[in-house]
Amino acid sequence: MYEISIKQVLNYLENEQFVELQKDIDQLHPADIVPILNDLPSEYQLAFFSLLKHETASDVLPELNDDVREHILQNIQQNHLVKIIDEMDTDEAADIISELEEDVSRDLLRKIDEEDSQQIKQLLKYDEESAGGLMQTEIIAVQKDLKRDELIEYIRENHDEVENIHYVFVVKEDQQLIGILEITKLLLARSEATAEEMMESEVISVKADVDQEEVANMFRKYDMFILPVVDNNNRLLGRITVDDIIDVIDEEASEDVYKMVGLESEDRVFTHPLSSVRKRLPWLTLNLFTALLVSSVVGIFEATIAELSFLAVLMPIVAGLGGNSGTQTLTVITRGIALGELTISNTYRAMFKEITVGIINGIIVGSFAMIITYLLRGDIMLGMVLGIAMICNMFIAGLVGSIIPIVMKTLKIDPALASSVIITMLTDIGGFASFLGLATLILL
Amino acid sequence: MYEISIKQVLNYLENEQFVELQKDIDQLHPADIVPILNDLPSEYQLAFFSLLKHETASDVLPELNDDVREHILQNIQQNHLVKIIDEMDTDEAADIISELEEDVSRDLLRKIDEEDSQQIKQLLKYDEESAGGLMQTEIIAVQKDLKRDELIEYIRENHDEVENIHYVFVVKEDQQLIGILEITKLLLARSEATAEEMMESEVISVKADVDQEEVANMFRKYDMFILPVVDNNNRLLGRITVDDIIDVIDEEASEDVYKMVGLESEDRVFTHPLSSVRKRLPWLTLNLFTALLVSSVVGIFEATIAELSFLAVLMPIVAGLGGNSGTQTLTVITRGIALGELTISNTYRAMFKEITVGIINGIIVGSFAMIITYLLRGDIMLGMVLGIAMICNMFIAGLVGSIIPIVMKTLKIDPALASSVIITMLTDIGGFASFLGLATLILL
Repeated sequence: MYEISIKQVLNYLENEQFVELQKDIDQLHPADIVPILNDLPSEYQLAFFSLLKHETASDVLPELNDDVREHILQNIQQNHLVKIIDEMDTDEAADIISELEEDVSRDLLRKIDEEDSQQIKQLLKYDEESAGGLMQTEIIAVQKDLKRDELIEYIRENHDEVENIHYVFVVKEDQQLIGILEITKLLLARSEATAEEMMESEVISVKADVDQEEVANMFRKYDMFILPVVDNNNRLLGRITVDDIIDVIDEEASEDVYKMVGLESEDRVFTHPLSSVRKRLPWLTLNLFTALLVSSVVGIFEATIAELSFLAVLMPIVAGLGGNSGTQTLTVITRGIALGELTISNTYRAMFKEITVGIINGIIVGSFAMIITYLLRGDIMLGMVLGIAMICNMFIAGLVGSIIPIVMKTLKIDPALASSVIITMLTDIGGFASFLGLATLILL
Repeated sequence: MYEISIKQVLNYLENEQFVELQKDIDQLHPADIVPILNDLPSEYQLAFFSLLKHETASDVLPELNDDVREHILQNIQQNHLVKIIDEMDTDEAADIISELEEDVSRDLLRKIDEEDSQQIKQLLKYDEESAGGLMQTEIIAVQKDLKRDELIEYIRENHDEVENIHYVFVVKEDQQLIGILEITKLLLARSEATAEEMMESEVISVKADVDQEEVANMFRKYDMFILPVVDNNNRLLGRITVDDIIDVIDEEASEDVYKMVGLESEDRVFTHPLSSVRKRLPWLTLNLFTALLVSSVVGIFEATIAELSFLAVLMPIVAGLGGNSGTQTLTVITRGIALGELTISNTYRAMFKEITVGIINGIIVGSFAMIITYLLRGDIMLGMVLGIAMICNMFIAGLVGSIIPIVMKTLKIDPALASSVIITMLTDIGGFASFLGLATLILL
């Protein structure tokens, strides 16, 4: 495959050798142009983008990093953008238009192809993260009693707008979806076969308002390439292709990891620093209050620490191991929920397992810690206190790491929000309280 | 769609009403049978599985939870398994066979269809996590000068084994891949068109030894449904379908989250507790040593704490916020690396950004903490010490949270291994040392 380095591109741009650059770009796959544009300094981005053919530009624009796309959309000439959007599938056009300022997008919708414009306006009404927000309206729908050659003729006349057809949808006169027909079957059928005879009538479809996470689960479950989208009366509205689902799965996976550490999904590597600050601040403020709570628990034992200052030296060990152990349990459970492995009937088993693992690991690691403490400090009772506190805290870690996300799931709160900040607060409190509490009882 | 509850199924099984149960199962989609089997008590799993038709069983078996599949494979009669595997695509058959004991699998490979057996043996040679390990050998490969109707005839004769065809591959006589031909194009072509004329000759393919993560990135980048796999001489070996890539993406996403908290990917919700204990123990032991290291840093300041015991009460605040802030940065950076957003040319920008965010958030949250401490303890100098330590530590969090995964990536070590245990160790040390150090200098 043809390749070009970012250095070469910069070289062309700096010397204004646009003709030569364009010749090189024309040989690239759109997917290979995306990383180049993402890496260019912003002052060159628009110049480079303007060199792309409209069709190529329509493939490149939706795939760019958010900040690069934003920069281009803010500076591109409207006539140019109109031509690019005319080349896009409706689902991508709707995504781009939703990113524009309202007056710009209204203006633009008047200038693009009328039929597309109508469909895009419809699409913009759906929640971006629903089946309707994911679907494209470019589909081939056929009537059930068309014969093979009529069907082929119909597809020939209507396939222009649709990429990756693979299937046509069979509908009744009122657009109700009754079947799905693989193109391969059409190719191999007898000439007198009708759409209804060739189609698969047990068709799996999704309603437009279903959340994208559930849509992704359908693709996972049924191993599909294409999923038809219908309204509440089973009338065909559009289709979702699997390539868009891969984006959804990536997005949802990021979101789950992000939520666990209290990040918002729009907070990416190249989000503007001030925007990242704003996004992380509420959560860090919450964290400040959980830390103050932890601190106040330690405060209960200030008199003990004043007497036995080495307790302050050892107490981070108990809290630290509990925190990490709790985060492990939290991760296993939330991931199990996300992938649909955890159901109502098996949650107790999962909880019981995590608690068991916590206790056994606590006993083993606690014993190590006890021995090491004894060797370092020569105090067997101190070692015992540390070891027992560790067992207690790793039991707490298994308990809260599993019970909190499971309860949240039952209450229909997103379990990934049971972020590590809550779990570490509880294991910090558990660790400090059990260690300092035992020490107060036994050592003082 | 037809549905049946786990209660009904159990009821049938307990009363040995197998005929009635079978009638109900026959109406279910294989994908809907999987969760039922996963939820059944293990004593009923084999009885239920035996009621499935061979073709259904061949769809269900690969999708089951690991422990359920293991239980079935250990107890199923070999003749039954042979019939089920004969119905599978080669890629799935190879996955199942690789899970069997060696003597069982050798025996089985002798009993299944000879041609399949040869191909499966070939597939078993590839690394499970490579393109070769993912591909299926059921493909339709055609010669370049076949005309349209000859092609259709060829597909008619050879399509039996292949599900979801959508594309045929065009090869030279020595099986070298020269193009890919969408079935839709074939349907719409003139009758005298040859394969070579209709095909897309800029075909994207992958070598059999490429890692599955890179394969997934190709699907992401080029929005494909199907990817041909070739050997080092560009000879066609098989194809990878996008539904298998979705599994890879799920798997890799789990793996990334898991590594960050020191978990192994085989450690799932229902892994046996003792196996989970064994898997988590090495990492918790490492964690014990990092905790001892942190503790020894606190130990340097034991004399200060003995004098000013309230420092021990406040010190978890500095460490806690730094730890969470560092984990946030770590998550943003590793996720950016996993999705390919971070390239060599933009790493400095990413690091600089994270450090900036750390400092700004440190100043804001540090000021809050300073005021709160002053209000609670009435000591302005103590508040200052806490606030400044917090700024220092959140700077450290931004620095180590970004620099460690980036350096690991440069050294070609998996950046997700820069687990939270390392980051929290560093932010713990940073937090305790800066707070207790400043306190020793200023307050003592």
